[in-house]
Amino acid sequence: MEKSAETDYPILDVLKRRWSPCAFSDRLIEPHKICCLFEALRWAASSFNEQPWSFIVATKDKADEFAKALNCLVEANQVWAARVPMLVLAIAKKTFTANNQPNRVYIHDLGLAMGNFCTQATSMNLFVHQMAGIDVNRIRELYEIPDDYEPVTVAAVGYGGESGQIPQNIRKRDFAPRTRKPLNEFVFENQWGQPSGIL
Amino acid sequence: MEKSAETDYPILDVLKRRWSPCAFSDRLIEPHKICCLFEALRWAASSFNEQPWSFIVATKDKADEFAKALNCLVEANQVWAARVPMLVLAIAKKTFTANNQPNRVYIHDLGLAMGNFCTQATSMNLFVHQMAGIDVNRIRELYEIPDDYEPVTVAAVGYGGESGQIPQNIRKRDFAPRTRKPLNEFVFENQWGQPSGIL
Repeated sequence: MEKSAETDYPILDVLKRRWSPCAFSDRLIEPHKICCLFEALRWAASSFNEQPWSFIVATKDKADEFAKALNCLVEANQVWAARVPMLVLAIAKKTFTANNQPNRVYIHDLGLAMGNFCTQATSMNLFVHQMAGIDVNRIRELYEIPDDYEPVTVAAVGYGGESGQIPQNIRKRDFAPRTRKPLNEFVFENQWGQPSGIL
Repeated sequence: MEKSAETDYPILDVLKRRWSPCAFSDRLIEPHKICCLFEALRWAASSFNEQPWSFIVATKDKADEFAKALNCLVEANQVWAARVPMLVLAIAKKTFTANNQPNRVYIHDLGLAMGNFCTQATSMNLFVHQMAGIDVNRIRELYEIPDDYEPVTVAAVGYGGESGQIPQNIRKRDFAPRTRKPLNEFVFENQWGQPSGIL
């Protein structure tokens, strides 16, 4: 389903077309394309080039692995995510590898890298729906994540699909219009809350 | 300067060409293009569509505002960032506006939005160099940031420039090759540390 953003200024088509559906096709993603997604992510910037991101990929064709990952989502997300062809657990390292000091921006840099992942996905007609509604402790336990690493999100990834196959109350989310705050509510100048004169 | 990533799998050109220089042209960015950067950012995903991001923009043509922002960087960053045409302070809200509950992924979602900002910038031949080397408390005080918000990074933004105009020890960073970990070091399957079979 097309759900292009209604922008006030022109932006890249690949950013305009991105949105987070709940309905996905059950078509498997070609392994080559999955590699492209992570390759795009790999070249993101990070503080001191730490690259604090790690991922655990679960594809639908490996039923046990997929069930293990699905089980790490809150129930409301399991309802629709059970149908996606791939789940990606996103994990970030809290410290710098070079000196074991805390990395203040480790979660930020994971997000930044996921930005690349989403943009690459859109360019290949794939959709990404990232979830914060996950059981962080269950991920820690099930996958034996080291203490120095933190599970942050799980992303559902796949081709677009028929929303008729998911429950009506979730389906309606996919048909709701996309809304965002206007720029003057969050782009300031000189002091907090003063809208930038550029706008 | 062109410094395209040497990728193992094909990715979008706009992701491949992005890198973080220290040398920028002092050419001012057209206000219309600045609006496009934030417009691209605005359409990023966020948990519960909270859009936890806010920004304070300081452009070089407003000398006092620019000096105020520059003063919030650690000294090592001030050396080169003094020449950029625009600094952007990036701030994230810690709680959900709807219910005042903590937002576990507020810093992640700021990073995700900055991913859009960087991609849009590259498409307009602009460069972005994000810095974690900032004085968070000074930003809090100088700009009177509310307690519920957290300064996270400052981004330098501008056109590419001549690295001869910055000190030699910093200049050499712009000529170093771009390096990243291989995918099999951070894309796992089924358990922590087991490289994904897709790779």
